[in-house]
Amino acid sequence: MRGFTHRTLAGAAQSWIDARTAPLAEEGVPLIDAAGRVLTREIASPVDVPGFDRAMMDGFAVQAADTTGASLYNRLPLPVVGLLLPGHVPSTAVERGQAIRIMTGAPLPPGADAVLPAEKAELDGEQILVLDEVTPGKHVGQRGEDVVAGSVVLPRGRRLRPQDVGVLSAIGCASVPVVRRPVVQLVITGNELLPAGELPRGCLIADANGPMLASLVRRDGGQPRQPDIVPDRYDAILAALTADADIVLVSGGSSVGQEDLAPAILAEHGQLAIHGVAMRPSGPTGMGTLGTRLVFLLPGNPVSCLCAYDLFAGRAVRALAGLSRDWPYRVARLPLERKLVSVVGRLDYARVRIREGRVEPLAISGASLLTSTTRADGFVLIPEDSEGYPADTVVEVFLYDECPTAPCLNSSNSWT
Amino acid sequence: MRGFTHRTLAGAAQSWIDARTAPLAEEGVPLIDAAGRVLTREIASPVDVPGFDRAMMDGFAVQAADTTGASLYNRLPLPVVGLLLPGHVPSTAVERGQAIRIMTGAPLPPGADAVLPAEKAELDGEQILVLDEVTPGKHVGQRGEDVVAGSVVLPRGRRLRPQDVGVLSAIGCASVPVVRRPVVQLVITGNELLPAGELPRGCLIADANGPMLASLVRRDGGQPRQPDIVPDRYDAILAALTADADIVLVSGGSSVGQEDLAPAILAEHGQLAIHGVAMRPSGPTGMGTLGTRLVFLLPGNPVSCLCAYDLFAGRAVRALAGLSRDWPYRVARLPLERKLVSVVGRLDYARVRIREGRVEPLAISGASLLTSTTRADGFVLIPEDSEGYPADTVVEVFLYDECPTAPCLNSSNSWT
Repeated sequence: MRGFTHRTLAGAAQSWIDARTAPLAEEGVPLIDAAGRVLTREIASPVDVPGFDRAMMDGFAVQAADTTGASLYNRLPLPVVGLLLPGHVPSTAVERGQAIRIMTGAPLPPGADAVLPAEKAELDGEQILVLDEVTPGKHVGQRGEDVVAGSVVLPRGRRLRPQDVGVLSAIGCASVPVVRRPVVQLVITGNELLPAGELPRGCLIADANGPMLASLVRRDGGQPRQPDIVPDRYDAILAALTADADIVLVSGGSSVGQEDLAPAILAEHGQLAIHGVAMRPSGPTGMGTLGTRLVFLLPGNPVSCLCAYDLFAGRAVRALAGLSRDWPYRVARLPLERKLVSVVGRLDYARVRIREGRVEPLAISGASLLTSTTRADGFVLIPEDSEGYPADTVVEVFLYDECPTAPCLNSSNSWT
Repeated sequence: MRGFTHRTLAGAAQSWIDARTAPLAEEGVPLIDAAGRVLTREIASPVDVPGFDRAMMDGFAVQAADTTGASLYNRLPLPVVGLLLPGHVPSTAVERGQAIRIMTGAPLPPGADAVLPAEKAELDGEQILVLDEVTPGKHVGQRGEDVVAGSVVLPRGRRLRPQDVGVLSAIGCASVPVVRRPVVQLVITGNELLPAGELPRGCLIADANGPMLASLVRRDGGQPRQPDIVPDRYDAILAALTADADIVLVSGGSSVGQEDLAPAILAEHGQLAIHGVAMRPSGPTGMGTLGTRLVFLLPGNPVSCLCAYDLFAGRAVRALAGLSRDWPYRVARLPLERKLVSVVGRLDYARVRIREGRVEPLAISGASLLTSTTRADGFVLIPEDSEGYPADTVVEVFLYDECPTAPCLNSSNSWT
């Protein structure tokens, strides 16, 4: 291995990705699977919601004018000429001087313009005594008050929240037009690898990158596909690279050694646009294109693989999925417990722990130790123009736990 | 409807929930499905990772002592007696004064104690000329340097991240012991409802709560199950309440009107512990138990349904799933654009928008308008002892978008 002759800056590599990624085409998904997906179009409602004036309380549909002057001391009688339940079409109109008993959600009958709440009426045989005035429109949900037919309820590009799915259901949307999820082929190479799930033995190790990458891709809105471990052979790697996929992630053999076949294969059959990035870990990262596929060459070392995914491949997966390119990580701004050193000219991805509100760097030298990323609470980036930070500098920590929680009324954790 | 005679404080209702919820029992899931799940046990490794000393660079396995004194001006010859590739068991030992060519990841052969990087050696026929000294252990990944057999790699209660799944794979874990996901039966009642996916017609409206609740339950780690819309009949609701589930969410008919059957059914066949909460919206919320099930009676009004889920049911789902009970919402602290009024004695759940860094309350009166929650960026809670806040007060906003993003090197959104 003779090293890279040129190393691209990480920001330039991201720009290369950004220039080649846009949300994929539309597909329709059933409403029930739409949460978390991204709309390809703005959604306008074909209907008014509600589609009819309706009672917002249990009570009596009346003409408001018939209640004028009613009070506890001036109880006005109105004969009750019917009953209306939710979901039933009114068969009787409310004429002047009449009332119809009505339940919340039932359509307001013709003639009525208000609902007298049940507690404002006293039952007296076939009639009620009105105990209070109501004004026109009182306790009536107007047709279209939630959604007017033709109006836009959700914008293009929206990542659908649970309540958005509720609104789509309310307007009768059975199939939702969303960005197709990118298919991400995982090409895990290495003759020393056993498939995930097997116990390491002899001089073989179990594949850590496949399951890790599959989880990352799913998190970022992609569909990971993983065949078996790919042998370190030209034909086998080439076949895996040409799978039917939007993105191909190759793990292992990404450097410039004799056994590093993937860069040569990509250069020969597609374009190896970038090979070698000025960063640590993950220096031996490559990227390019093969047909319509974006191909990322990730180091086999699990920490470098995670870092290269975080900086590059994940950005592409999210962009194709229609999500923000940015990280799904929270940011904390906290002081360093110890100095954090780096080398000018390369980006450092330093795993850190947070203890008592202070940031502790984990040994940055252990680039190969995956457990450094499971002990870590997140990472700090040290840019190319920095030699690092002295103790007590407030730094931005990107927190690995992408599902943050906020305190509720009684804050408590189930496990403490 | 005569109103509630007693309303429980929201915090007391949460305490009732907390006293009755703990993570469910363990189930094993395949490694590939483990991300996001919660460990029921700490995981100790049955093996060392790596399970053997290995080369960390391409180069030559040597005895470090044989390189003593080597430099560009003192090239020391060593005969090359073999080649070792990753995944292959060494068949030859490195004797004093010998070298074996070795690739990254291959096991260090017996006798060798260091790897001389390829660029520190010059090939000369069947031998190399050593150009630099290496110290014992140099470029060697020691057996167990990532994980020592018997050591704990992940704690109980951990929500598994992608890199955690990688570590589990590295130690040969094929099935991961995680908290079972709670089964949540959705009981959507209302004779005026059409199933989700149907276009509203006549005086019927499409069910918004079923798809919304299903999405919320999934987000919180539960497994939603939704049968057809349940008719507003005693026998039909009772049958739906006794489904095989950990939690039952009833939408609609939760109040004290004549058509509100669910509270009576729950009181008769189980325990209706709380009915009526001092809050707005969602006052007509109930909760109790039926056999081993936790039952939540949520108002049919979609905004109240969302709010009651947020405050109560979601907390129970997350607790049973082994997650933090707290909200999966980010918190922003921002000033109010306008005053936000409330009534002493009840908790208010006010939907707000954020515009130019300021918090704009949306009309709090439109409790029935689901679009008020899709236009909103989040909500502000106004506690029972407050009349609200004047303009410019800095308030906590709980943001509906539960998947936050942090700026990457080149921050950009795919849709702008």
